[in-house]
Amino acid sequence: MAILKGNAIVGQSGGPTAAINATLSGVIRGALADETIGTLYGAYNGVEGMLAGTYCNLSEIFSDPGKLSTLETTPAAALGSCRRKLPSPDSADPADAAVYTALFAFFRSLDIRYFFYIGGNDSMDTVAKLTAYAAGHDYEIRVMGVPKTIDNDVMGTDHTPGFGSAAKYIAASVGEILRDCAVYTTKAVTIVEIMGRDAGWLTASAALTRVTGSEPDLVYLPERVFDFDRFFADIAVAFKRHPNVVIAVSEGLRLADGRYVGESAQSGASDAFGHKYLSGTGKALEIAVKEKFGCKVRSVELNILQRCASHLASATDIGESVAVGRAAVEAAVSGVSGKMMTIRRVSDQPYRTEPGFEEIDKIANRVRVVPDAFINEAGNGITDEGVAYLLPLIRGESYPVYRDGLPVHLLLK
Amino acid sequence: MAILKGNAIVGQSGGPTAAINATLSGVIRGALADETIGTLYGAYNGVEGMLAGTYCNLSEIFSDPGKLSTLETTPAAALGSCRRKLPSPDSADPADAAVYTALFAFFRSLDIRYFFYIGGNDSMDTVAKLTAYAAGHDYEIRVMGVPKTIDNDVMGTDHTPGFGSAAKYIAASVGEILRDCAVYTTKAVTIVEIMGRDAGWLTASAALTRVTGSEPDLVYLPERVFDFDRFFADIAVAFKRHPNVVIAVSEGLRLADGRYVGESAQSGASDAFGHKYLSGTGKALEIAVKEKFGCKVRSVELNILQRCASHLASATDIGESVAVGRAAVEAAVSGVSGKMMTIRRVSDQPYRTEPGFEEIDKIANRVRVVPDAFINEAGNGITDEGVAYLLPLIRGESYPVYRDGLPVHLLLK
Repeated sequence: MAILKGNAIVGQSGGPTAAINATLSGVIRGALADETIGTLYGAYNGVEGMLAGTYCNLSEIFSDPGKLSTLETTPAAALGSCRRKLPSPDSADPADAAVYTALFAFFRSLDIRYFFYIGGNDSMDTVAKLTAYAAGHDYEIRVMGVPKTIDNDVMGTDHTPGFGSAAKYIAASVGEILRDCAVYTTKAVTIVEIMGRDAGWLTASAALTRVTGSEPDLVYLPERVFDFDRFFADIAVAFKRHPNVVIAVSEGLRLADGRYVGESAQSGASDAFGHKYLSGTGKALEIAVKEKFGCKVRSVELNILQRCASHLASATDIGESVAVGRAAVEAAVSGVSGKMMTIRRVSDQPYRTEPGFEEIDKIANRVRVVPDAFINEAGNGITDEGVAYLLPLIRGESYPVYRDGLPVHLLLK
Repeated sequence: MAILKGNAIVGQSGGPTAAINATLSGVIRGALADETIGTLYGAYNGVEGMLAGTYCNLSEIFSDPGKLSTLETTPAAALGSCRRKLPSPDSADPADAAVYTALFAFFRSLDIRYFFYIGGNDSMDTVAKLTAYAAGHDYEIRVMGVPKTIDNDVMGTDHTPGFGSAAKYIAASVGEILRDCAVYTTKAVTIVEIMGRDAGWLTASAALTRVTGSEPDLVYLPERVFDFDRFFADIAVAFKRHPNVVIAVSEGLRLADGRYVGESAQSGASDAFGHKYLSGTGKALEIAVKEKFGCKVRSVELNILQRCASHLASATDIGESVAVGRAAVEAAVSGVSGKMMTIRRVSDQPYRTEPGFEEIDKIANRVRVVPDAFINEAGNGITDEGVAYLLPLIRGESYPVYRDGLPVHLLLK
């Protein structure tokens, strides 16, 4: 493969994670270390910034590499994000063609020969489309996608950058909630609602507290149909063990008829104007359990904190996220293009991973769910095999630097 | 004052905090170091345990003092808690008298001459009543209360043990939410609901992010009447600055007519059975803002995480909580009884505090609210004077020990 000299640009896209800036740091580290890449630019708000001409010079900003460690402990996309999907590169619509013309004019103007896109499904779609368009339009550019999602539901990779940190935050928070709930002797149910609409990886992470000696009584994933009667029966059994029942549920739980639990009759909340609104899975279950058992019931929604809690990131996740970003640069420079970076688990004992890459079309638009072997037979808990898969991903603490009692973040825009 | 030899017991009461076990550790450290105290017992679930005879021998458990540091980073009451209020010591009701008879029989059986009660208002009430009863019943016992509450609303003390850690968690989480919200360019409002029904100390702590360079656009405390029209006008102004508006609100916000915002017309949610339920302040405001502005709106309830997040405790708070527990033992041994421990701020530059004590009747049943000088004129933000008061309380990180990626907690029951 011929050496391709020129400049590079990196963008971030999709929802925030605690590790997306660690991957950005990896790309920066890779580009700074490589002599075939001249300047590394950063596009603000992903593809939007390349269309609007809003970007920064990362080679210059990080000429002091000491800043990179601060970037690695800063949550959410430091370059800003977007949710834009590109049109088909073959579209006959002049408006669609204009988007590509504008993008490639931008690339030409800065002599961009490498584009790294850190994001979710839409970003991988963008990588595939730009690769296809470039092939037919006499402009050599190497394009690499680097996945990030707390959801861990991407095919072709052992796990996704960003997942381990979210899992660690969830498990540690559930551990603290378990202590909080244990102090009283009166009957009470606490329901913790965890993100993950289509796959239960994050909710399963609540069971990691098992290694501390106490764990949620029940864990429900979207991989299993949710049934209120079985749920009530499970709680009744748990009450025989102790008065404080703690339950982890995925926001994506669905009933046999396909409706989300938050849309079920048990949760048909409406506001003063008569508008129905989804009360959320945790709230719906809270109302139902209160109705059934008459005891104290509380629901706790971990909400966006689980995707942006850099103060409790997994050192394993941050390290791998940096490594996969750096490996994306190395792969592109060596000639690879149009691929998505992956993490391969090459050993369990000791846990060891290596960056790799895969064809995007093998991966795109498919959801990797929690396998049967990780879910117990009753469908209300996680097996030891599941815990063994998850545990290495949360190991190690990535502490930010604190100033005046608060984590220091690095802002790029 | 004569030397009073004998044993001691300590109990915990009221809602969890991240520092209540640090105070317990201080009491243990004080008792282990003092020769007039024989054995220190721990009552399970506060007064309940003394009535039920369920307790442990803390002198024995902590003969290895290395465990104390683990106790100090364990959230919620390790001895369990209760919410029991004692009857009047002068009550003519035989059932009431029987409670005191039972308690003092318990004290006599273990030769308990010192009782330390770590808790909220109910605990201070218990301390006052036991002191009064003992005085008239020929049994010498010294009783000391040690306050703990994340709410910081106790009179007679500069701040309460437990508050600084909750404030640090809130400020750090809001800092991460600010980063999370900043990534998109579309209009959105994020409302963070924070604990504190009667006083806005915890909500005010969201403004501590000011020292990092970005902070919530608006902060509303229960010390000011909440008005929907002013709220909407404030948001409109904030939108002129940037598309991502972040707002911190207290759960205790009330309208001019005294109703909680969560009880207002804007939030009159009811379930499928027609039962009205309080949707929470954040959810009520979320619905109202969505209705008014039509943009993306999200509410995030920090919920019980803010009171049990030991993984992000303030080293200042944990240190002071230990010191005040230890000082309670020293004061009692020196002859003090029937008092509540306090924290006095003896210097601002540098920040320095000392433990003290106060008469309980000067303190009980009164709420210390956020002073006017800490709230801006518009009633939608915190002054620099307020930030200056709060900032020292969150300084320093009290890291727990991690094993397998999760904080290690110490269980006593």
